[in-house]
Amino acid sequence: MKIHHLGIAVNSIEKALTVYRQLFPDLKAEREPLREGASMEMVMIKTESGPLLELMQPLHPDGDIGRFIARRGEGIHHIAYEAADIHAVCAQCREQGYRVLGEITQGAGGCDTFFIHPKDTCGVLTEFVSCAGEAQGK
Amino acid sequence: MKIHHLGIAVNSIEKALTVYRQLFPDLKAEREPLREGASMEMVMIKTESGPLLELMQPLHPDGDIGRFIARRGEGIHHIAYEAADIHAVCAQCREQGYRVLGEITQGAGGCDTFFIHPKDTCGVLTEFVSCAGEAQGK
Repeated sequence: MKIHHLGIAVNSIEKALTVYRQLFPDLKAEREPLREGASMEMVMIKTESGPLLELMQPLHPDGDIGRFIARRGEGIHHIAYEAADIHAVCAQCREQGYRVLGEITQGAGGCDTFFIHPKDTCGVLTEFVSCAGEAQGK
Repeated sequence: MKIHHLGIAVNSIEKALTVYRQLFPDLKAEREPLREGASMEMVMIKTESGPLLELMQPLHPDGDIGRFIARRGEGIHHIAYEAADIHAVCAQCREQGYRVLGEITQGAGGCDTFFIHPKDTCGVLTEFVSCAGEAQGK
Protein backbone atom coordinates (compact mmCIF):
# COMPACT_ATOMS: atom_id res chain seq x y z
CA MET A 1 0.00 0.00 0.00
CA LYS A 2 1.26 3.41 -0.91
CA ILE A 3 -0.33 6.71 0.06
CA HIS A 4 -0.65 9.11 -2.88
CA HIS A 5 -1.99 12.16 -1.05
CA LEU A 6 -3.90 13.48 1.96
CA GLY A 7 -6.84 15.74 1.24
CA ILE A 8 -7.21 18.67 3.64
CA ALA A 9 -10.28 20.94 3.55
CA VAL A 10 -9.47 24.59 4.32
CA ASN A 11 -11.37 27.87 4.24
CA SER A 12 -8.44 29.67 2.65
CA ILE A 13 -5.53 28.12 0.75
CA GLU A 14 -3.57 31.35 1.18
CA LYS A 15 -3.94 31.22 4.95
CA ALA A 16 -3.11 27.50 5.05
CA LEU A 17 0.01 28.08 2.92
CA THR A 18 1.12 30.82 5.33
CA VAL A 19 0.80 28.35 8.24
CA TYR A 20 2.59 25.49 6.44
CA ARG A 21 5.36 27.84 5.23
CA GLN A 22 5.96 28.98 8.81
CA LEU A 23 6.18 25.37 10.02
CA PHE A 24 8.15 24.14 6.98
CA PRO A 25 10.22 26.95 5.43
CA ASP A 26 11.34 24.67 2.55
CA LEU A 27 7.73 24.09 1.46
CA LYS A 28 7.08 23.34 -2.21
CA ALA A 29 3.53 24.01 -3.37
CA GLU A 30 1.88 23.93 -6.79
CA ARG A 31 -1.56 25.20 -7.74
CA GLU A 32 -3.77 22.80 -9.73
CA PRO A 33 -5.31 24.34 -12.85
CA LEU A 34 -8.94 25.23 -12.16
CA ARG A 35 -11.28 22.93 -14.07
CA GLU A 36 -14.57 24.02 -15.63
CA GLY A 37 -17.42 23.66 -13.18
CA ALA A 38 -15.07 22.92 -10.29
CA SER A 39 -16.44 23.43 -6.79
CA MET A 40 -13.00 23.86 -5.22
CA GLU A 41 -9.51 25.26 -5.74
CA MET A 42 -6.57 22.95 -5.05
CA VAL A 43 -2.91 23.32 -4.18
CA MET A 44 -0.55 20.37 -3.89
CA ILE A 45 2.25 20.48 -1.29
CA LYS A 46 5.16 18.08 -1.82
CA THR A 47 6.59 16.11 1.09
CA GLU A 48 9.86 14.18 1.22
CA SER A 49 9.56 10.74 -0.41
CA GLY A 50 5.98 10.65 0.67
CA PRO A 51 2.42 11.63 -0.07
CA LEU A 52 1.29 15.02 -1.31
CA LEU A 53 -0.86 17.28 0.84
CA GLU A 54 -3.87 18.36 -1.23
CA LEU A 55 -5.25 21.62 0.14
CA MET A 56 -8.85 22.11 -1.00
CA GLN A 57 -10.69 25.41 -0.68
CA PRO A 58 -14.40 25.55 -1.58
CA LEU A 59 -15.41 27.92 -4.39
CA HIS A 60 -19.02 27.83 -3.19
CA PRO A 61 -20.73 26.46 -0.08
CA ASP A 62 -22.79 23.79 -1.86
CA GLY A 63 -19.89 21.73 -3.23
CA ASP A 64 -18.45 18.68 -1.44
CA ILE A 65 -15.76 20.63 0.40
CA GLY A 66 -18.04 23.54 1.27
CA ARG A 67 -20.53 21.15 2.82
CA PHE A 68 -17.78 19.21 4.61
CA ILE A 69 -16.46 22.39 6.25
CA ALA A 70 -19.97 23.54 7.16
CA ARG A 71 -20.61 20.18 8.86
CA ARG A 72 -17.25 19.39 10.47
CA GLY A 73 -15.02 22.45 10.15
CA GLU A 74 -11.67 22.60 8.42
CA GLY A 75 -9.53 19.46 8.65
CA ILE A 76 -8.33 16.25 7.07
CA HIS A 77 -10.85 15.12 4.47
CA HIS A 78 -9.52 11.89 2.93
CA ILE A 79 -6.58 9.54 2.38
CA ALA A 80 -5.76 8.56 -1.21
CA TYR A 81 -3.85 5.38 -2.06
CA GLU A 82 -2.12 4.53 -5.34
CA ALA A 83 -3.72 1.83 -7.45
CA ALA A 84 -1.74 0.19 -10.25
CA ASP A 85 -4.94 -0.92 -12.02
CA ILE A 86 -7.76 1.34 -10.86
CA HIS A 87 -10.48 -0.60 -12.70
CA ALA A 88 -9.43 -3.88 -11.07
CA VAL A 89 -9.24 -2.30 -7.61
CA CYS A 90 -12.66 -0.66 -8.06
CA ALA A 91 -14.25 -3.92 -9.21
CA GLN A 92 -12.70 -5.79 -6.28
CA CYS A 93 -13.96 -3.19 -3.78
CA ARG A 94 -17.48 -3.53 -5.17
CA GLU A 95 -17.24 -7.34 -5.00
CA GLN A 96 -16.11 -7.13 -1.37
CA GLY A 97 -19.18 -5.03 -0.57
CA TYR A 98 -17.53 -1.62 -0.20
CA ARG A 99 -19.77 1.23 -1.31
CA VAL A 100 -18.01 2.99 -4.18
CA LEU A 101 -19.17 6.62 -4.39
CA GLY A 102 -20.15 7.19 -8.01
CA GLU A 103 -17.81 5.97 -10.73
CA ILE A 104 -14.14 6.24 -11.64
CA THR A 105 -13.56 9.87 -12.66
CA GLN A 106 -10.64 12.10 -13.59
CA GLY A 107 -9.40 14.01 -10.56
CA ALA A 108 -6.52 16.34 -9.74
CA GLY A 109 -3.48 16.05 -12.00
CA GLY A 110 -5.49 14.09 -14.57
CA CYS A 111 -5.38 10.95 -12.39
CA ASP A 112 -8.18 8.39 -12.48
CA THR A 113 -9.84 8.16 -9.11
CA PHE A 114 -12.70 6.72 -7.06
CA PHE A 115 -13.83 6.98 -3.45
CA ILE A 116 -15.14 4.47 -0.89
CA HIS A 117 -17.79 5.54 1.61
CA PRO A 118 -16.15 6.43 4.95
CA LYS A 119 -18.66 4.30 6.85
CA ASP A 120 -17.16 1.23 5.16
CA THR A 121 -13.57 2.15 6.08
CA CYS A 122 -13.78 3.02 9.79
CA GLY A 123 -14.67 6.67 9.33
CA VAL A 124 -11.94 7.48 6.79
CA LEU A 125 -13.02 8.66 3.35
CA THR A 126 -10.73 6.49 1.22
CA GLU A 127 -9.70 7.30 -2.34
CA PHE A 128 -7.79 5.23 -4.87
CA VAL A 129 -5.89 7.00 -7.64
CA SER A 130 -4.01 5.92 -10.71
CA CYS A 131 -1.84 8.50 -12.45
CA ALA A 132 -0.33 7.72 -15.87
CA GLY A 133 3.38 7.08 -15.47
CA GLU A 134 3.22 7.26 -11.68
CA ALA A 135 1.66 4.15 -10.21
CA GLN A 136 2.25 1.62 -12.97
CA GLY A 137 3.97 -1.49 -11.83
CA LYS A 138 4.06 -0.48 -8.18
CA MET B 1 8.82 18.26 5.38
CA LYS B 2 8.39 14.58 5.91
CA ILE B 3 5.27 12.87 7.25
CA HIS B 4 6.05 10.30 9.95
CA HIS B 5 2.56 8.89 10.49
CA LEU B 6 -1.17 9.48 10.26
CA GLY B 7 -3.19 8.87 13.40
CA ILE B 8 -6.57 7.21 12.86
CA ALA B 9 -9.09 6.83 15.69
CA VAL B 10 -11.08 3.58 15.49
CA ASN B 11 -13.55 1.79 17.72
CA SER B 12 -11.90 -1.57 17.06
CA ILE B 13 -8.37 -2.18 15.81
CA GLU B 14 -9.36 -5.74 14.88
CA LYS B 15 -12.21 -4.54 12.69
CA ALA B 16 -10.03 -1.83 11.13
CA LEU B 17 -7.29 -4.38 10.37
CA THR B 18 -9.87 -6.62 8.69
CA VAL B 19 -10.89 -3.72 6.44
CA TYR B 20 -7.33 -2.66 5.60
CA ARG B 21 -6.29 -6.28 4.95
CA GLN B 22 -9.16 -6.65 2.49
CA LEU B 23 -8.14 -3.47 0.67
CA PHE B 24 -4.38 -4.17 0.90
CA PRO B 25 -3.64 -7.91 1.08
CA ASP B 26 0.10 -7.26 1.57
CA LEU B 27 -0.55 -5.25 4.75
CA LYS B 28 2.18 -5.21 7.40
CA ALA B 29 0.98 -4.29 10.90
CA GLU B 30 2.72 -4.23 14.25
CA ARG B 31 1.14 -3.81 17.68
CA GLU B 32 2.71 -1.20 19.98
CA PRO B 33 3.47 -2.48 23.49
CA LEU B 34 0.80 -1.23 25.88
CA ARG B 35 2.21 1.37 28.26
CA GLU B 36 1.25 1.72 31.91
CA GLY B 37 -1.72 4.03 32.32
CA ALA B 38 -2.31 4.17 28.56
CA SER B 39 -5.76 5.29 27.42
CA MET B 40 -5.47 3.61 24.03
CA GLU B 41 -4.15 0.58 22.16
CA MET B 42 -2.10 1.21 19.04
CA VAL B 43 -1.17 -0.71 15.90
CA MET B 44 1.23 0.66 13.28
CA ILE B 45 0.63 -0.20 9.60
CA LYS B 46 3.59 0.22 7.25
CA THR B 47 3.15 1.86 3.86
CA GLU B 48 5.59 1.86 0.93
CA SER B 49 8.32 4.49 1.35
CA GLY B 50 5.86 6.60 3.24
CA PRO B 51 4.21 7.37 6.54
CA LEU B 52 2.90 4.82 8.98
CA LEU B 53 -0.82 4.53 9.71
CA GLU B 54 -1.28 4.61 13.49
CA LEU B 55 -4.56 2.92 14.41
CA MET B 56 -5.70 4.03 17.87
CA GLN B 57 -8.45 2.27 19.82
CA PRO B 58 -9.63 3.79 23.11
CA LEU B 59 -9.27 1.64 26.22
CA HIS B 60 -11.81 3.78 28.04
CA PRO B 61 -14.18 6.55 26.94
CA ASP B 62 -12.54 9.36 28.93
CA GLY B 63 -9.14 9.29 27.21
CA ASP B 64 -8.23 11.56 24.27
CA ILE B 65 -9.26 9.05 21.62
CA GLY B 66 -12.43 7.96 23.42
CA ARG B 67 -13.55 11.59 23.63
CA PHE B 68 -12.55 12.26 20.02
CA ILE B 69 -14.69 9.37 18.78
CA ALA B 70 -17.61 10.39 21.03
CA ARG B 71 -17.47 13.90 19.58
CA ARG B 72 -16.63 13.29 15.91
CA GLY B 73 -16.87 9.56 15.24
CA GLU B 74 -14.09 7.32 13.96
CA GLY B 75 -11.68 8.92 11.50
CA ILE B 76 -8.37 10.62 10.86
CA HIS B 77 -7.12 12.19 14.08
CA HIS B 78 -3.77 13.84 13.33
CA ILE B 79 -0.80 14.19 10.97
CA ALA B 80 2.67 13.72 12.46
CA TYR B 81 5.80 15.20 10.84
CA GLU B 82 9.40 14.26 11.49
CA ALA B 83 11.53 16.78 13.36
CA ALA B 84 15.33 16.48 13.33
CA ASP B 85 15.62 18.58 16.52
CA ILE B 86 12.31 18.38 18.37
CA HIS B 87 13.30 20.90 21.04
CA ALA B 88 14.28 23.50 18.44
CA VAL B 89 11.07 22.94 16.45
CA CYS B 90 8.94 23.16 19.61
CA ALA B 91 10.65 26.39 20.72
CA GLN B 92 10.20 27.88 17.25
CA CYS B 93 6.49 26.95 17.18
CA ARG B 94 5.98 28.67 20.55
CA GLU B 95 7.87 31.75 19.33
CA GLN B 96 5.68 31.90 16.22
CA GLY B 97 2.59 31.87 18.44
CA TYR B 98 1.41 28.30 17.84
CA ARG B 99 -0.28 26.78 20.89
CA VAL B 100 1.77 23.73 21.89
CA LEU B 101 -0.44 21.25 23.75
CA GLY B 102 1.42 20.35 26.94
CA GLU B 103 5.12 19.57 26.69
CA ILE B 104 7.40 17.27 24.70
CA THR B 105 6.60 13.72 25.81
CA GLN B 106 7.57 10.20 24.84
CA GLY B 107 5.00 8.72 22.45
CA ALA B 108 4.63 5.53 20.41
CA GLY B 109 7.86 3.72 19.60
CA GLY B 110 9.73 5.72 22.24
CA CYS B 111 9.76 8.80 19.97
CA ASP B 112 9.77 12.32 21.43
CA THR B 113 6.65 14.15 20.40
CA PHE B 114 4.52 17.27 20.81
CA PHE B 115 1.24 18.51 19.36
CA ILE B 116 0.02 21.87 18.06
CA HIS B 117 -3.59 22.91 18.62
CA PRO B 118 -5.67 22.16 15.48
CA LYS B 119 -7.19 25.66 15.55
CA ASP B 120 -3.71 27.06 14.81
CA THR B 121 -3.12 24.73 11.86
CA CYS B 122 -6.33 25.02 9.81
CA GLY B 123 -8.25 22.30 11.66
CA VAL B 124 -5.52 19.65 11.52
CA LEU B 125 -4.13 18.37 14.81
CA THR B 126 -0.41 18.52 13.99
CA GLU B 127 2.25 16.44 15.73
CA PHE B 128 6.03 16.60 15.47
CA VAL B 129 8.06 13.50 16.32
CA SER B 130 11.71 12.72 16.67
CA CYS B 131 12.73 9.07 16.86
CA ALA B 132 16.30 8.14 17.77
CA GLY B 133 18.11 6.98 14.66
CA GLU B 134 15.21 7.84 12.38
CA ALA B 135 14.97 11.56 11.81
CA GLN B 136 18.50 12.70 12.63
CA GLY B 137 20.07 14.84 9.98
CA LYS B 138 16.93 15.05 7.87
